Amino acid sequence: MPKPVTFKPGSKITLADIDPRKVEGDWDKESAKERIDENTERSRDLAYRLYAENQRALLLVLQGMDTAGKDGTIRTVMTGINPQSCQITSFKQPSPLELDHDFLWRIHAAAPRRGEIGIFNRSHYEDVLVVRVHGLVPEAEWKTRYDRINDFERLLIEGRVKIVKCFLHVSKDEQRERLQARLDNPDKRWKFSKGDLAERKLWPDYQDAYEDALNKCNTEHAPWHVIPSDRKWYRNLLVSELLKDTLESMDPRVPPSEEGLDGIVVE
Amino acid sequence: MPKPVTFKPGSKITLADIDPRKVEGDWDKESAKERIDENTERSRDLAYRLYAENQRALLLVLQGMDTAGKDGTIRTVMTGINPQSCQITSFKQPSPLELDHDFLWRIHAAAPRRGEIGIFNRSHYEDVLVVRVHGLVPEAEWKTRYDRINDFERLLIEGRVKIVKCFLHVSKDEQRERLQARLDNPDKRWKFSKGDLAERKLWPDYQDAYEDALNKCNTEHAPWHVIPSDRKWYRNLLVSELLKDTLESMDPRVPPSEEGLDGIVVE
Repeated sequence: MPKPVTFKPGSKITLADIDPRKVEGDWDKESAKERIDENTERSRDLAYRLYAENQRALLLVLQGMDTAGKDGTIRTVMTGINPQSCQITSFKQPSPLELDHDFLWRIHAAAPRRGEIGIFNRSHYEDVLVVRVHGLVPEAEWKTRYDRINDFERLLIEGRVKIVKCFLHVSKDEQRERLQARLDNPDKRWKFSKGDLAERKLWPDYQDAYEDALNKCNTEHAPWHVIPSDRKWYRNLLVSELLKDTLESMDPRVPPSEEGLDGIVVE
Repeated sequence: MPKPVTFKPGSKITLADIDPRKVEGDWDKESAKERIDENTERSRDLAYRLYAENQRALLLVLQGMDTAGKDGTIRTVMTGINPQSCQITSFKQPSPLELDHDFLWRIHAAAPRRGEIGIFNRSHYEDVLVVRVHGLVPEAEWKTRYDRINDFERLLIEGRVKIVKCFLHVSKDEQRERLQARLDNPDKRWKFSKGDLAERKLWPDYQDAYEDALNKCNTEHAPWHVIPSDRKWYRNLLVSELLKDTLESMDPRVPPSEEGLDGIVVE
């Protein structure tokens, strides 16, 4: 089965060397759709067991440039899983209250509880991405955040949260086409903002910031998965596989029943 | 289409007069399943528009005796809707921190945000149900809660949250069968606790408490829907219809696009 691009912790990740159009094997849109449907059925069952077991959680972190498809990935991969097992948090611009705390305060509050699959649509990584690119805090401040992030992820893991981090990797050309499609399609136009064009001009700065985040936070305990995302169906297939494989490796079990229930007749 | 049992605000609701096995029309398990699948597809589309619109929320409150099927209803009716649009909160025994506040404090914190479908699996009604039956607070205290609940629901509604309250109505016989099935089926046994039998002995007290909650909180702004629930497929059908009908009546629209986007070419 096709896999995301991963790197040994400590080895150098260079985004320019990873082809966003890459497809492994002879998969196409149709065969991917069938496979995703199978994976969803399997993940639905495993999510039920994770919920019943109520001992551990799974956290899927989704990052990527505008139009890389964070929402679309969630829609395709998670629709069909019982929403009672899922907790999805979209991190937008922080509120004044959130800015009055350290950058991990609001993130920590959204950590998935036991039994749940948590999904972060954007995450604490924004605090070394948009914050760095726009100089929202001094360099001396964001520079130490990579270590704080690694420490924080270690804390979650010791609290029995399995972390899977995905970078949805699109090319600059593909982003151009997707932004133009939003402009040209009346049904999608509401998603477009002129601010998207200003952000696009900062493409090289964002790629540098992503490359640093990937390299500095690609730990043994919470490695990054780079998802070639120029083809939406392939991106969805990879994340769907990753979710299913991770749940399978966790192997959740329904809990044992109470002692002394044999022979009880309900009246 | 079949509808839940509803009552004009102010008219008397008597649970003993409502048949939990009631089925309207010639629906059966198979036709209900087909219809639920159609409803899910429609609700999925409407939920997307509600999310895009980002102006209003829908809150579905599920109450019912043990085994009435709150979890099963959520699983059947909500699986297939994008979990990014859903926020499901299960209210369990309150924590010491929660008990150090008024009874609506933890409920308010879980109110759905704009664009979302929130589901309460149990709710603030537990504070006039289990709390009353077990005498966890003095009568003088729970007696005023009905008014506080009506006020609170009015607040949510004025904050653009549409509230749909469902009481899953099962018979005492059906509960016996479902509890026995949990005991007898090794895959379900983990769900059974000896405490369930002690609660079952309090059946009449719970019915009285439910009847009061239904009568005192059946307001124009947030009426109760009684769902005959001895047949699981019929229960699911009714809630699925209700969800779809409510979303249709809200008629959410994707927001207008920014001004001045005509002719932009992305570079």
